[in-house]
Amino acid sequence: MTNSNDMPLAAKPIERAAHRRLDEAWLEEAFARKDVLVLLMRNGEPFVHPGRDSGLVWMGPEAARLSPGSPRLFLGEDKAGTPVFALDLPERFALEGSLIEGAGEFLDFRAAAGSIPDMDGNCASTARSIFMWHQSHRFCSKCGSESAMVEAGWKRQCPSCGAEHFPRTDPVAIMLAVKDGKALIGRQKMWPPGFYSCLAGFCEPGETIEQAAAREIFEEAGVVADAAGAEYVACQPWPFPSSLMVGLILEAEGFDISIDEKEIEVARWVTQEEMVRILNHSHEEIFGPPPMAIAHHIMKVWSEKDH
Amino acid sequence: MTNSNDMPLAAKPIERAAHRRLDEAWLEEAFARKDVLVLLMRNGEPFVHPGRDSGLVWMGPEAARLSPGSPRLFLGEDKAGTPVFALDLPERFALEGSLIEGAGEFLDFRAAAGSIPDMDGNCASTARSIFMWHQSHRFCSKCGSESAMVEAGWKRQCPSCGAEHFPRTDPVAIMLAVKDGKALIGRQKMWPPGFYSCLAGFCEPGETIEQAAAREIFEEAGVVADAAGAEYVACQPWPFPSSLMVGLILEAEGFDISIDEKEIEVARWVTQEEMVRILNHSHEEIFGPPPMAIAHHIMKVWSEKDH
Repeated sequence: MTNSNDMPLAAKPIERAAHRRLDEAWLEEAFARKDVLVLLMRNGEPFVHPGRDSGLVWMGPEAARLSPGSPRLFLGEDKAGTPVFALDLPERFALEGSLIEGAGEFLDFRAAAGSIPDMDGNCASTARSIFMWHQSHRFCSKCGSESAMVEAGWKRQCPSCGAEHFPRTDPVAIMLAVKDGKALIGRQKMWPPGFYSCLAGFCEPGETIEQAAAREIFEEAGVVADAAGAEYVACQPWPFPSSLMVGLILEAEGFDISIDEKEIEVARWVTQEEMVRILNHSHEEIFGPPPMAIAHHIMKVWSEKDH
Repeated sequence: MTNSNDMPLAAKPIERAAHRRLDEAWLEEAFARKDVLVLLMRNGEPFVHPGRDSGLVWMGPEAARLSPGSPRLFLGEDKAGTPVFALDLPERFALEGSLIEGAGEFLDFRAAAGSIPDMDGNCASTARSIFMWHQSHRFCSKCGSESAMVEAGWKRQCPSCGAEHFPRTDPVAIMLAVKDGKALIGRQKMWPPGFYSCLAGFCEPGETIEQAAAREIFEEAGVVADAAGAEYVACQPWPFPSSLMVGLILEAEGFDISIDEKEIEVARWVTQEEMVRILNHSHEEIFGPPPMAIAHHIMKVWSEKDH
């Protein structure tokens, strides 16, 4: 089994210290500490050092002056007990003329994440999911009133009907159907030419992750696979905006493919030898997902199996 | 590995036939078919035959006359291609004087579910999750307008801002921390005296299921466990209201317990021999969760392991 703890965006998490979330006096003091670590985000984009491959810019207490009313998320405490926060800057926040002009740039999360070190990547991933959730959940789904962020970003509360709302985490099955030394991969029309990956889809209420995997393989590619024998590989948080990718390998009953063109453009069976070349970029037609994505690891686990 | 496909409330699922959800003409016709199968629910309670242990009452097309404006959920097609629906009756719907007076009773889901056969249990579980979601998500979380149920119950759409909303599925880690032939179980104050079960807690954005399990064990019982070595057991949909319980077994580092009294009342280590007696009701002090719950199966898997 692959170790979920090693998955990119999940590795080296800080202690979430959830008991601090209700302690507003402590939070206020912590954000003012000289050693506080504050990451900046604007519309889901992390603030990173200029130029690629250089990681997050961590601010200190001066972050409080950047945009005083902006939502603050308490992420936890690092190994030394240092408090770690994220600050969500307004979409209209201008770098020019600000305190942080020249210190870095707001970069698309996918572009940035590959080069952010482990702990920082997990913090940024968590912050992105939570901030995107606040953006799309400003109003109470029960009564329609505007709700308020509470508990250091980890809850919203409706002042009108009192309903409590917690951040979503959407489980997604992501999987390889395999048979006789071959694995099924596919591509969506919007993906770059030659890019193939695992099939995937959201788990619905009332089904297991294994059943969701088998259902999606059948819906997308017309291949019948065995939910009962599914092998769990690992899982990975995926902040686009709030998925939890759960990786599986399932035995298929046959090779016949029948595509649902609304879902994917094409699917095909590849051998283990091809899979190795897909992952090391020596396949003549196909390239696969980067190591940042769990799909890469599922494909790798299977490519290294004895058959 | 336990087979998630065999878990109560997950076993023998019908074909969801998701492509039908958009075909309103087909759905209308299907609901009017002589052989249609319609289950009834009122405020999350399934309509079951009178007296316990007798399962769901399945209605035919006459269900349309019960409460014409009530939400209809398309659950899928059974093996014979028969369409299966669920009808959500208003909370104020009175059995007395209705078409179904005397045919059964609305029963608390937990009380009813243990005696509902597999396929029916999965249908009822799915219906409960979806209907509870509609009840708590009448309004658009993005703009506050009243949204509408579309796609045969599987989506809500906002007529004002156009946002689409999908049913929630909340992943929950449910686990045993184990060490040297002992396992950690606990109880909440509100549970019946003597009842103990696995510890459990919601997965948060940015963490893996394994990390959520280790975090909860530490938060609730003060026990440090190893997320990296967690063993996946199985998962189970749990419609209270929309959980996906993911079962794990983790190695603990030590036996010392320090309870968070807000979360649980007590936790204790039990031997494998005790666990067997807890599950077969011969333990002098403790009884455990029923076979309907995944906790039972996690405890059973561990009690049968070689050590």
